[in-house]
Amino acid sequence: MTAAWLQRWRAYAGEFLHEDLLAAFVVSVLLIPQSLAYAMLAGLPAQTGMYASLLPLLLYALLGSSPYLGIGPVAVLALMIAQTLGQAPAGVSPGEAALVLAAEVGLILAAAAALRLDALAALLSVPVLHGFETGATLSIAAAQLPVLLGSPASGFDLPSLLGSAMASGGQWHRWSAAFGVGAVCVLVFGRQGLAALLGRWMGEVRAALLLRLLPLVLLLLAMSASRGLDAVSAGVAVVGELPPLHLGLSLPRLDAALWQAMLPGALLLALMAYVTSLVVSESLARRRAERVDARRELLGLAGANLAAALSLGMPVAASFSRSVLLYDAGSRTRMSGVFIAFAMGLAMWLLAPLLAWLPKAVLAATILVAVLSGLKFAPFAQAWRYARAEAVLMGLVTLLVLFWSVSAALGLGVLGAIALLLQRTARPHVALIGRVPGTEHYRNMDRYQVECLPGVMGLRIDESLLFTNARSLTDVVQALLEQQPDTRRVVLQMAPVNAVDFSGLEALRDLHEALRRQDIRLDLSEVKGPVLDRLKASAWQHWFRGQLFLSHHQGMLDGSRVASDWVSP
Amino acid sequence: MTAAWLQRWRAYAGEFLHEDLLAAFVVSVLLIPQSLAYAMLAGLPAQTGMYASLLPLLLYALLGSSPYLGIGPVAVLALMIAQTLGQAPAGVSPGEAALVLAAEVGLILAAAAALRLDALAALLSVPVLHGFETGATLSIAAAQLPVLLGSPASGFDLPSLLGSAMASGGQWHRWSAAFGVGAVCVLVFGRQGLAALLGRWMGEVRAALLLRLLPLVLLLLAMSASRGLDAVSAGVAVVGELPPLHLGLSLPRLDAALWQAMLPGALLLALMAYVTSLVVSESLARRRAERVDARRELLGLAGANLAAALSLGMPVAASFSRSVLLYDAGSRTRMSGVFIAFAMGLAMWLLAPLLAWLPKAVLAATILVAVLSGLKFAPFAQAWRYARAEAVLMGLVTLLVLFWSVSAALGLGVLGAIALLLQRTARPHVALIGRVPGTEHYRNMDRYQVECLPGVMGLRIDESLLFTNARSLTDVVQALLEQQPDTRRVVLQMAPVNAVDFSGLEALRDLHEALRRQDIRLDLSEVKGPVLDRLKASAWQHWFRGQLFLSHHQGMLDGSRVASDWVSP
Repeated sequence: MTAAWLQRWRAYAGEFLHEDLLAAFVVSVLLIPQSLAYAMLAGLPAQTGMYASLLPLLLYALLGSSPYLGIGPVAVLALMIAQTLGQAPAGVSPGEAALVLAAEVGLILAAAAALRLDALAALLSVPVLHGFETGATLSIAAAQLPVLLGSPASGFDLPSLLGSAMASGGQWHRWSAAFGVGAVCVLVFGRQGLAALLGRWMGEVRAALLLRLLPLVLLLLAMSASRGLDAVSAGVAVVGELPPLHLGLSLPRLDAALWQAMLPGALLLALMAYVTSLVVSESLARRRAERVDARRELLGLAGANLAAALSLGMPVAASFSRSVLLYDAGSRTRMSGVFIAFAMGLAMWLLAPLLAWLPKAVLAATILVAVLSGLKFAPFAQAWRYARAEAVLMGLVTLLVLFWSVSAALGLGVLGAIALLLQRTARPHVALIGRVPGTEHYRNMDRYQVECLPGVMGLRIDESLLFTNARSLTDVVQALLEQQPDTRRVVLQMAPVNAVDFSGLEALRDLHEALRRQDIRLDLSEVKGPVLDRLKASAWQHWFRGQLFLSHHQGMLDGSRVASDWVSP
Repeated sequence: MTAAWLQRWRAYAGEFLHEDLLAAFVVSVLLIPQSLAYAMLAGLPAQTGMYASLLPLLLYALLGSSPYLGIGPVAVLALMIAQTLGQAPAGVSPGEAALVLAAEVGLILAAAAALRLDALAALLSVPVLHGFETGATLSIAAAQLPVLLGSPASGFDLPSLLGSAMASGGQWHRWSAAFGVGAVCVLVFGRQGLAALLGRWMGEVRAALLLRLLPLVLLLLAMSASRGLDAVSAGVAVVGELPPLHLGLSLPRLDAALWQAMLPGALLLALMAYVTSLVVSESLARRRAERVDARRELLGLAGANLAAALSLGMPVAASFSRSVLLYDAGSRTRMSGVFIAFAMGLAMWLLAPLLAWLPKAVLAATILVAVLSGLKFAPFAQAWRYARAEAVLMGLVTLLVLFWSVSAALGLGVLGAIALLLQRTARPHVALIGRVPGTEHYRNMDRYQVECLPGVMGLRIDESLLFTNARSLTDVVQALLEQQPDTRRVVLQMAPVNAVDFSGLEALRDLHEALRRQDIRLDLSEVKGPVLDRLKASAWQHWFRGQLFLSHHQGMLDGSRVASDWVSP
């Protein structure tokens, strides 16, 4: 047994170890400041973010599927967590509520995996997802400005942020702002300047590698400067003394009222954690012509969040920026996640004494630069050109995040997308079809020169017959019949009908009945195999009086018509 | 002007007056006890139901479209109203809250008409609607039993009803039960016995007409008996003294907290009022090969509910039983509704003094017989045979109504139907297609003997590319590519793709990009006109490197392949 493991490890070490270690190092350097910053953004103690970067990564490595996912605290989730923690009953600390939230997210994802609900990812259409991410990014960036400038203002939506800024009279703090703005400059301009400088000195490849260390260097610089200049005495807000490292497991608080208060938020968080992670892993898998197992992703995320709940963390997902970094830095297996977890543990142990001095304004700068780099407005223009209604939905979701709340934006966005879908499929497209002269092909009469048979109406249904459109089937056919009152037989070409649900079956029966009352026979042609199997399983022979034809042409002729019967309409 | 009206009236009187008057009389006889009973069921004073049968009918006649709709109080709505009124703030009488509720229902329906949201009727699929109606019927019937037997128990879901019955120790009242059970016997057996008796005496047609008077005769008998036997002194619960008739208009109470508390219930009531009325009018219109104008129905119902709100009524809709009666009795125009309203006004004036004596148990009997006659279990069996998942949904909605609440049942039912829809369309069906030898027809390789071209993969997408399935497109194609690793070109037959939404466009782009990375070209064939127009409106020429072909056969050959290239797989 041990020998087998040793052998596997040797094979792994020979092939992938080097690349995984390097990728893990590069990502850890970015994860250290981000984990602290996103915990702060969520309104939680800074170390919560680091705890969420230890055990959850091990669990994902064990249960997940992608070698590129940068699991851990994520900005958009942090914003959602901040707003959800506001719903916690009085007397519960944010930290306790966050553990319950992580446990619920983990259990919901595990249940979704067990019930094979991976298809629910479809709930978040591209417009809703992009609108939401844009709104969340802008909202997070706006919330960082007061921290960056040392202002007492706070809030996660623009109205409360502006109100709070007005109430504090636009007050700011000089030294905090110096740290914050300085950090932004280092992260934005320092990178460009250093790239040129180091590139000349040591070659571009090494320079690029060294530049990856910038976030860590900035953190160390800021902590040293803050300590050296005694920033605390000057009134700069710092992270402050952290409690001693605690590596045991503990159950989240079992309090029914707390669990109930967190549940609506947990549902939205679970959906968002799953969908954003899936989008990241799918887009990276496409680059290598690999496929993603959505259920394994659900399981991995469920494990990671449950681990976070048991080890003093917060809800986690895959970060887009860290995942791309992990991919670009050459991660080959999920072992890189294990190495990142070890690096984070080491960093916690080494950095803990220094973190007390870290100015919050520097963390705000980290968040600001990280989220703004992901901002994309092009999809709004693309959507506007392609489909106005969807572009409007996208913009509405963005505005709802900014001016109301993430849960309202997400809920209404999903409902809006479904409403658009229902509106689109509400009337089945039913085309009058005729014969292309001299062939057995049938085409839409409105678009082609075709011929028809007097007394026989050929129709093609261009949608599956589902509850979204079933109710209007008879109405649509009746409207066509009013144009051709001499019709004695209707032949419905069912080739484009991929499915008929129970509402569709009722609609077919209603149509049959309505036609029968007018002495018109309803025949079906080219019914797809699976659809016919289902129809036969129901007791449809009790009411269906028409015939089934394998080809629409046979259906039109019905064995009794001859070539000279065809006329041009 | 007056002359023109007079002329129209003469034309009407000559053609339809007789039939409309007769139908109105028959329906009024049924509406008198029902309007009182459904108001009681909704937890409102009995006269509320009669007020809701006056002005609302005139407004529907003015704005609506169907000559057969029996507008007025409806059992299922009454149950929903009863549960919604429980949400009213303290200090508001049920009557006041019901007026606000009717106003909101009217405004919502008017807004839906203005925004052309008539397609939202699709939200209630057949399984959800039937499950809901069955649950509501059983729940209403159960709630009538204590009233019928003179027990103090009450409640609208089984748990609270049983709890309340247990608490009262199964207590019942002999005289109330005598009235209640007697009324049930008259309504059920009396009709059968009298039909035989009267049929022999005066012929079947006249007997049937006379039997329609039975509900009114029962009411008069019960009131006389109750007065003669001094039932009140014996402890029988009666309707009691009614306030004097009030025919003026008044605005509902303008209280923000009350309007807000009623709003969620009003949304569900509006949806249910609209859909049930639409189902009734459509099923009656089908019998005569007529069509229903859904927007006119929305307008008519909006007007009727707003009228109810201004004239001391309650939310109204079309009753299935009264509509069928109106149709069968030969109503020809919406004037029959006007006559019913006049008949109700007359009845209120004549009966008001007597109604004080009417035992509530007799009204309970009226409700019980009316709702149970509409109970149908066959659709459960049909749905089970046809589609298990939908049958389960139907049953779940029924149980939710019985054991939880109408709003929970309706909300979860709609969500369940949408979840089933998403699940069904979550993976686009993509078929490998090959050429039927010697033709230009292409068919699914799994089902037909076809031949293919090495290096070229022909695929057919069998669904519209919408957000529900877009995300898995690349994944499905990638899975097929793993079976044919020598593919250099993919030709996608787009004939069954009726629409591509923004998420679908992104998916197409992702697929294009994923194939490009594998040096595989993506071509499209037989793209439908409207779909192509939309694609061209977007900036797709910036990224699309493949070709468009008018026929799939041309796409496979791409101008360079010859007959001998084809092979059997």
